[in-house]
Amino acid sequence: MNVKEAIVSRRSVKHYDPEHQMSAAEVTELMEHAILSPTAFNLQHWRFVHVVDKNKREQIQKASWGQSQVTEASMLLVLCADLNAWEKNPRRYWQNAPEAVQDFMLPAIEGYYTNHHQGMRDECFRSSSLAAMTIMLMAKEMGYDSCPMDGFDFDEVARIIELPHDHIITMMITIGKPLQSARPRAGQLPLEEVFFTDQFPKAN
Amino acid sequence: MNVKEAIVSRRSVKHYDPEHQMSAAEVTELMEHAILSPTAFNLQHWRFVHVVDKNKREQIQKASWGQSQVTEASMLLVLCADLNAWEKNPRRYWQNAPEAVQDFMLPAIEGYYTNHHQGMRDECFRSSSLAAMTIMLMAKEMGYDSCPMDGFDFDEVARIIELPHDHIITMMITIGKPLQSARPRAGQLPLEEVFFTDQFPKAN
Repeated sequence: MNVKEAIVSRRSVKHYDPEHQMSAAEVTELMEHAILSPTAFNLQHWRFVHVVDKNKREQIQKASWGQSQVTEASMLLVLCADLNAWEKNPRRYWQNAPEAVQDFMLPAIEGYYTNHHQGMRDECFRSSSLAAMTIMLMAKEMGYDSCPMDGFDFDEVARIIELPHDHIITMMITIGKPLQSARPRAGQLPLEEVFFTDQFPKAN
Repeated sequence: MNVKEAIVSRRSVKHYDPEHQMSAAEVTELMEHAILSPTAFNLQHWRFVHVVDKNKREQIQKASWGQSQVTEASMLLVLCADLNAWEKNPRRYWQNAPEAVQDFMLPAIEGYYTNHHQGMRDECFRSSSLAAMTIMLMAKEMGYDSCPMDGFDFDEVARIIELPHDHIITMMITIGKPLQSARPRAGQLPLEEVFFTDQFPKAN
């Protein structure tokens, strides 16, 4: 499937065939592509938790106000990120680069993130959302549908997946074979309402 | 180009052919696909500023510590989002949905975002980053390379593009014809360091 078809045909699906199972090879293929998405300073601070355990799935469903997709999807991914990845042996993110590049990057990383707490948090959302879109388009290529989710109790899901204290959850994604197609798009804004040249239009 | 090829071959390119121009039709095609990405509650709160004016490009380059890609790229996009889109006539985001869906969604939107300031900000990063990945993969399909940027003075760029006070900038993207290929990947973490089953591993 070409990129354009994947973008146009991807819709958020909320009802999946609960009998369908993704193979381990499919899961690996999907995730190996996910981590080719870009991150600032190549931090790769995203962390992905693939929730397979039936009991944990049910707990997460409760924490998601009962949404059936959480237990029916072939795959439930909790997207997380490590707020402090920038200070955890950052040389490994640049180990194959020329020494001059490493010597520039390592102090730049430290300078950018030290005491820049909102920046770290924003970066976690930015990077894991870039990976999320890669996952949803790649899923489409592999014959699957998906749904990005932020309607759940983040603190409760953190407890269920034993999230480390210096990480955050950024969203969840369900992936599977659709039982029911998505409804028509609910109210697409015209491009000219969200796309401007050179500056924002003056308020009337 | 299929999705898999686009994901694998997309690399962040920092040197573009300054002579190449994208046609208006290409820009529209790219952006019409960008806005097919998902947003929570279908808010579509992303706003994109396409900076064409030479003088503004130079000002943004100064605010980006002189990075040449800012003026050399065929397209410079500033990705922004409206923090308060949820309360600006939200019925239009659901106008084609059945009335029962509208009656559920509108109070749900108000309930979710009222006084949930960090949630709104996180959502802005989430949605515009999902669109950003769509843009970079679609650019690849159209024969272009791209680079996501967060190394710039956000406040200064906000002034240049006349960002409304209740919006934020989330990143920039440059797009163009590469003059120089990207370096080999600098230090890819193995999948098992970032992908876990059911829960995070216990700390050693």
